Amino acid sequence: MGSRWGTGRIESFSDGVFAIALTLLVFDLAVPAASFDNLWRGIAHEWPSYLAYLTSFITIGGLWMAHLGIFRRLQSANPAVMRLNLLVLMGVAFLPFPTGLMAKAIRDTNAERAAVVFYGVTLLVISVLLRVLWDAIVRNPELLDPSVSTQEIKPIRRAALPNIGFYAAAIALALLFPQAAVFGYLAIAVAAVWRAHGDESPRRRHAEAV
Amino acid sequence: MGSRWGTGRIESFSDGVFAIALTLLVFDLAVPAASFDNLWRGIAHEWPSYLAYLTSFITIGGLWMAHLGIFRRLQSANPAVMRLNLLVLMGVAFLPFPTGLMAKAIRDTNAERAAVVFYGVTLLVISVLLRVLWDAIVRNPELLDPSVSTQEIKPIRRAALPNIGFYAAAIALALLFPQAAVFGYLAIAVAAVWRAHGDESPRRRHAEAV
Amino acid sequence: MGSRWGTGRIESFSDGVFAIALTLLVFDLAVPAASFDNLWRGIAHEWPSYLAYLTSFITIGGLWMAHLGIFRRLQSANPAVMRLNLLVLMGVAFLPFPTGLMAKAIRDTNAERAAVVFYGVTLLVISVLLRVLWDAIVRNPELLDPSVSTQEIKPIRRAALPNIGFYAAAIALALLFPQAAVFGYLAIAVAAVWRAHGDESPRRRHAEAV
Amino acid sequence: MGSRWGTGRIESFSDGVFAIALTLLVFDLAVPAASFDNLWRGIAHEWPSYLAYLTSFITIGGLWMAHLGIFRRLQSANPAVMRLNLLVLMGVAFLPFPTGLMAKAIRDTNAERAAVVFYGVTLLVISVLLRVLWDAIVRNPELLDPSVSTQEIKPIRRAALPNIGFYAAAIALALLFPQAAVFGYLAIAVAAVWRAHGDESPRRRHAEAV
Repeated sequence: MGSRWGTGRIESFSDGVFAIALTLLVFDLAVPAASFDNLWRGIAHEWPSYLAYLTSFITIGGLWMAHLGIFRRLQSANPAVMRLNLLVLMGVAFLPFPTGLMAKAIRDTNAERAAVVFYGVTLLVISVLLRVLWDAIVRNPELLDPSVSTQEIKPIRRAALPNIGFYAAAIALALLFPQAAVFGYLAIAVAAVWRAHGDESPRRRHAEAV
Repeated sequence: MGSRWGTGRIESFSDGVFAIALTLLVFDLAVPAASFDNLWRGIAHEWPSYLAYLTSFITIGGLWMAHLGIFRRLQSANPAVMRLNLLVLMGVAFLPFPTGLMAKAIRDTNAERAAVVFYGVTLLVISVLLRVLWDAIVRNPELLDPSVSTQEIKPIRRAALPNIGFYAAAIALALLFPQAAVFGYLAIAVAAVWRAHGDESPRRRHAEAV
Repeated sequence: MGSRWGTGRIESFSDGVFAIALTLLVFDLAVPAASFDNLWRGIAHEWPSYLAYLTSFITIGGLWMAHLGIFRRLQSANPAVMRLNLLVLMGVAFLPFPTGLMAKAIRDTNAERAAVVFYGVTLLVISVLLRVLWDAIVRNPELLDPSVSTQEIKPIRRAALPNIGFYAAAIALALLFPQAAVFGYLAIAVAAVWRAHGDESPRRRHAEAV
Repeated sequence: MGSRWGTGRIESFSDGVFAIALTLLVFDLAVPAASFDNLWRGIAHEWPSYLAYLTSFITIGGLWMAHLGIFRRLQSANPAVMRLNLLVLMGVAFLPFPTGLMAKAIRDTNAERAAVVFYGVTLLVISVLLRVLWDAIVRNPELLDPSVSTQEIKPIRRAALPNIGFYAAAIALALLFPQAAVFGYLAIAVAAVWRAHGDESPRRRHAEAV
C-alpha cells in the first residue's frame, strides 16, 4: 500500500503557516513620521499598501479554504502529497515578499510593472501547485476518505482551473496596465473565497472532530 | 441543507491569527539607544507604547473570548460564516498597524487625534463584524449545536451591542480629548474580558474535547 | 456551578503564544555589516545577544512546561482562570522586549543594571501570576480533573514558590553584579525545565488524546 | 514507571515553532529601493537570499517531517524527551539567524566562508540533537506506541545517521568552496524530504485522529 501519514499534524502545521503568513502582512503597513503633520492625509497616502494588504490577505484566506477543501477529503497522505503540500506552503510563506514589493513599487513608473507581474507570477505558481497537489491525490483514490464520491471529485478539479486562467490573464493585463491588474488579483481572490463551498452535510469523520 | 464546514480547522486557524496578532504587538516596544544614559527614564518615557500595547493585547484577548463564545455554540459553518470570520480575522490581524501609529502619535499634538480616532474606528469595525457574524449564525439555527437553547442566544446578542455603542462614544471623545479616549478603549477591553462568560456547565461536545 | 469553558482552545491559543514568543526572539540576533571583515569575531562579539536568547528561550520553555502541568490537571476553566491565563500570556508575549533591551545594554555601564533588573522583574511578575493562577484553580477543586488527588496538588504549589524566591534573589544580585545576575536567570530557567515532571502514568483524559 | 507527558500539546507546540520559523524566513527577502530603476535586475540580484531561503525552508520542512516520524511512534514523553525536544526547537528557531547571515555574506569574500560554515554547524547540531532525541526514546521502549515493531526502529535510527555525515562533509567543503557548500546543504535538505516516509498503513492511534 506504500508509505502513509495521518493528516492531523499536516493540517495543524499548514494552518500555522497560513495564519502566520496572513498576520505578517501587517508589517508592510506604516506611515512615515514625516506625515504626522497631517496624519489623515498620511494614512490615505498609503493606499497602495492597503490594496496590497487586502489582496494578499483575501488571497491567502482563499488558499486556506482551498487547502481545507482538499484535506477534508483526505484519509491519509503519501510522499507526493507531503512534498507538494510543502511547496504550496513555501509559496504562501513567500507571498509577503512580492506583496511588500508591489506596495512600495505601485507609484513608481519604472518599477510597478515588474512588481505587479512578479506578484502575479507568484500567485500563478501557487495555483498551479495546488492543482498538481489535487491531481496527485485523485490519481491515488485510496488516499481519499471512503465517503468521497467520484461525482464530487470532478467539480473540485474543474474549480481549480479558472484561477490559473484568471492569473494568466491578469499577468498579461499587468504588462499594459499594472494598477488595473492589482484590482484583477483582488477580484480573483474575492471570487475564490466566494466560490469555496463545504460539504452538502458536514462529514462526521474522525478528523472533523478536531 | 446547503454547503457546510466542520469547525475544527476554522478554530485552530483563528486561534493562530489571534495568538500571532497578540504576540506581534511587542515589536512596537523599543527604547532608543540614545536613552541608554538613563535607561529607567528611557523606559518610563515610552509609556504611550505600553498603554497602546496593553489596550490592544486585552482587546484581542477579549475578541478571542468572544470568538470562543460564538464557535463553541456552532455545529458547522456555512459560506457566510466562513467569509465573515475571515473579515473578523482581517480586522484583528490589521490591529497592530493602528496600535503602532497611536503609540507613536500620542504625544504629537498634530497627529494624536487622527491616530486615536483611526484606532477606535478599527475597533468599532471589528465589533460590528463580530455582531454581523453572530447574526448570520442566529438566522441559520441549524448551524447551532442542538444543545444551545433559544434563551441562550438572546443575551449573547445583547452582550455584543454595548461594545459598538461604547466604541462610538470613545471615538466621539477622541475628537475632543484623544488621550482620555485611549483609556476609554482600555476600559472597554477590560470590561469585555470581564463580562465574557462560559457555559453554566461545560458542554461535552465533540469539539470541546479538543 | 457558575460559568465554565472547555480547555481545548485555551491550550491551543496558549501554545500559539508560547511558540511565537519563543520564535520571535531570533529577531534580536544580528551581526552588523561592519563586522563582515572578520565575521567570526563579529559573531563572537554578539555573545550578550546569545546569552539573552538562551535565557529567554529556556525560560519560555519552562513556563510552557509549567502551563502544561497546570492545564493537564484542569477539567474546565472559570472566568478567573481565563483572565489570569491571559495575564500570564501577556507577560510571555512581552518578554522579547526586556530580552532585546538586556542584550543591547549588557556592555553599557550606564544601562546594564537597569536592563537586567527590568528583565528580572518581568520574570518575577510572570512567576507570581502563574502561582496566582494555580491558587485560583486550587480554590475551586471542581475545576480539576477528578483523577487529580489532593496529595498531588500540594507539591505543585510548593514547586512554584522557589522560582519567586530565586528571581527576587537574582534581582537583588543584579543591583550589584548585573552580568552575574543574567547567569542567575539562566540557571533558574534550566532548573525549572529540569524540575518539571509529568504524571506517574500518562493520564488517559479526553484532552490527553489531543 | 517515572514521569510522563501526553504527546498532544508537545506536538502542537512544536508544530507552532516549525511553522513560525519557516514563515519568518521571508523577512530576509528584500529588494533595496535603489534597485527600483531596474526592478527585474534588482530582483535577480538578490539570488543569494532566495538560495538561503529555499535551503532553510526545505531544511525546516525536512526536520518537521523527521519530528513527525518520531512523535508518531511515541506513546508518551519522559523528561529527557521533553528537554531534548526543547533543544531541537531551539535549533530550529535559531536557524533564521545564520540563514540571514549567509544570505548577506554570500558575495563578500571575507565573510562568506565563516557564514556558510556557521550555517552548516547549526544544521549539524540540530541533526545530532534529533539523533540523540531518537536514541533517548529507543532506550526507553515503554515510551513507544505498542504497535511499533523492533524492525521498524533500526532503519529509522540508521536513516538519521547520513545527515550527520553529509553535514560534516558539506562543512568541510565550505572551507574550500563556500558557494558550492550552500548547494550541498540544499541537496541534503531535498534528500531528507525525499527519503522521509510514513507508515506502511496509517496507524489508527488516538493521536493520529488529531
